[in-house]
Amino acid sequence: MSLTEFSIIEKYFHQANKSRRDVVLGVGDDGAVVKVPNGYELVIAMDTLNSGVHFPTNTKPYDIGYKSVAVNLSDLAAMGAEPAWITLSLSMPQAEEKWIKDFSAGVFALLEKYDAQLIGGDTTQGSLSVTVQAHGFVPEGKALQRSGAKPGDAVYVTGSLGGAGLALSQQNVPSPILQKLTHPQPRINVGILLRYIASAAIDISDGLAADLNHILEKSGVGAVVNVEDLPMPAEFKKLDEDQALHLALTAGDDYELCFTVPQSNLDALEKIKEKLDCPVTRIGVVTSLNQLQFQYGDGSEYVIAKKGYQHFSS
Amino acid sequence: MSLTEFSIIEKYFHQANKSRRDVVLGVGDDGAVVKVPNGYELVIAMDTLNSGVHFPTNTKPYDIGYKSVAVNLSDLAAMGAEPAWITLSLSMPQAEEKWIKDFSAGVFALLEKYDAQLIGGDTTQGSLSVTVQAHGFVPEGKALQRSGAKPGDAVYVTGSLGGAGLALSQQNVPSPILQKLTHPQPRINVGILLRYIASAAIDISDGLAADLNHILEKSGVGAVVNVEDLPMPAEFKKLDEDQALHLALTAGDDYELCFTVPQSNLDALEKIKEKLDCPVTRIGVVTSLNQLQFQYGDGSEYVIAKKGYQHFSS
Repeated sequence: MSLTEFSIIEKYFHQANKSRRDVVLGVGDDGAVVKVPNGYELVIAMDTLNSGVHFPTNTKPYDIGYKSVAVNLSDLAAMGAEPAWITLSLSMPQAEEKWIKDFSAGVFALLEKYDAQLIGGDTTQGSLSVTVQAHGFVPEGKALQRSGAKPGDAVYVTGSLGGAGLALSQQNVPSPILQKLTHPQPRINVGILLRYIASAAIDISDGLAADLNHILEKSGVGAVVNVEDLPMPAEFKKLDEDQALHLALTAGDDYELCFTVPQSNLDALEKIKEKLDCPVTRIGVVTSLNQLQFQYGDGSEYVIAKKGYQHFSS
Repeated sequence: MSLTEFSIIEKYFHQANKSRRDVVLGVGDDGAVVKVPNGYELVIAMDTLNSGVHFPTNTKPYDIGYKSVAVNLSDLAAMGAEPAWITLSLSMPQAEEKWIKDFSAGVFALLEKYDAQLIGGDTTQGSLSVTVQAHGFVPEGKALQRSGAKPGDAVYVTGSLGGAGLALSQQNVPSPILQKLTHPQPRINVGILLRYIASAAIDISDGLAADLNHILEKSGVGAVVNVEDLPMPAEFKKLDEDQALHLALTAGDDYELCFTVPQSNLDALEKIKEKLDCPVTRIGVVTSLNQLQFQYGDGSEYVIAKKGYQHFSS
């Protein structure tokens, strides 16, 4: 079937019964008009997912919609921001109503969970590609940045590492592992509670080694990580140790948070742990050595063969 | 040659010597952090341009960069907003340094003109596609919307109509006509000055007939347009009248503004005309008839064969 751009937008992308008080004007004009509350700054994150690059061409439309929002909310989480609005640009070769219906269901599943509103965007003809921009609030001066880690800070990660990578590399993985890939949970709640506790944070999209390195480079520091402390999915017990560690350190797509906490805030972190909706695990310490080292518990070095995925790398 | 994603961003998309005071954190973290001034609302517009759909595959990279920003600033203009920041997602099959250099020059040409800053985005592998989101400020409650036109309001357009359409349909057009297509001028100055004068506004991306119709539908009104009053490029005198009118009414890509002005504000419009950086021309009047009619000066009807471009239309 064939639909015009306007009827697609009307039918599947209007949230008729959704209107945040800070949205003056939503979908349907040349632009959206919104308000940022006094005392807050606006955090903005934009990520694009292309078919065949960021997800397999046979991915379900619901999962594409879900993930295109999840990866952006994950960026907000890493900044300590509370989600408010998203915009969405959807390019597709043709407009199939069933596909669009399922895709939009995936988008709205996450938006409704976080009381966020779709306020605008674009639908165009082209190769299948989704760009989402997420907008969130953070109290003035309280955004978590990559640049704040200091020697002596403890290094933490949320949840477990490597599950999405295993699901990408193997078929017929157990359902909890597949969920890590298809329906990652943005760590919004953790990010908000870390605003006054963490010194630096990032979300793990390209693998722990690559993403922790971003914190270290921006902060001008190094770190030692104990690979025996890495939290991994229960199903990883069936893997040999080297495969498990390699996935946990280098596989992307988990969308967990990696963050650093000054020693003076460790008590505060303990106190908020019960409010967190996922475990957090201490995996290492920030050093002044300007390099990232991986060790076993006995102090011997663990060497990883390669780092996370980079587009256009030679 | 081959470049990593990070080196591309560093080399061509950092504005090292550019930092607006309302940008707390720009390119280089999980998200940007920005401030909206007190008393202002934020206007957000997002448009995607796909190669082979929105621009010919042989379009110069500078022109793609320029236009991807221009069409979004044009949306801000239609809302009466002053540009502040953009985010940019660029998908491309491979990273060619010369292409990226020229593309970014087109992007920054417009940003510098309007003192706007690139604060974030994404670069990914995929079919050539550019998504830009533009962010601007408007005083609280003063955004120009499509829905405010009332019977009796005068209908105006900026600049001239049809030039971009002629350049799209013919090769070897005169340079001023080609410029209309490749380097449209967002009518920012006009939009800002119309905040307290116009009752409704839209930018003309899909042709005057289609876009004026959006104002009429959102406002629940109609309009009569005198086709003999339509402003057209000087070069259109060489065309036969029907071809010229058809282009002026139905061709897209001019990115002029169409706006309506209550009779009580016509004097105010006259007074600001000398401050405008382009002509504005009265072309008709809003009616209560719920339809858009085109007439010659003698009152006889002009009928157009088809309306503006719609993606996915059947």
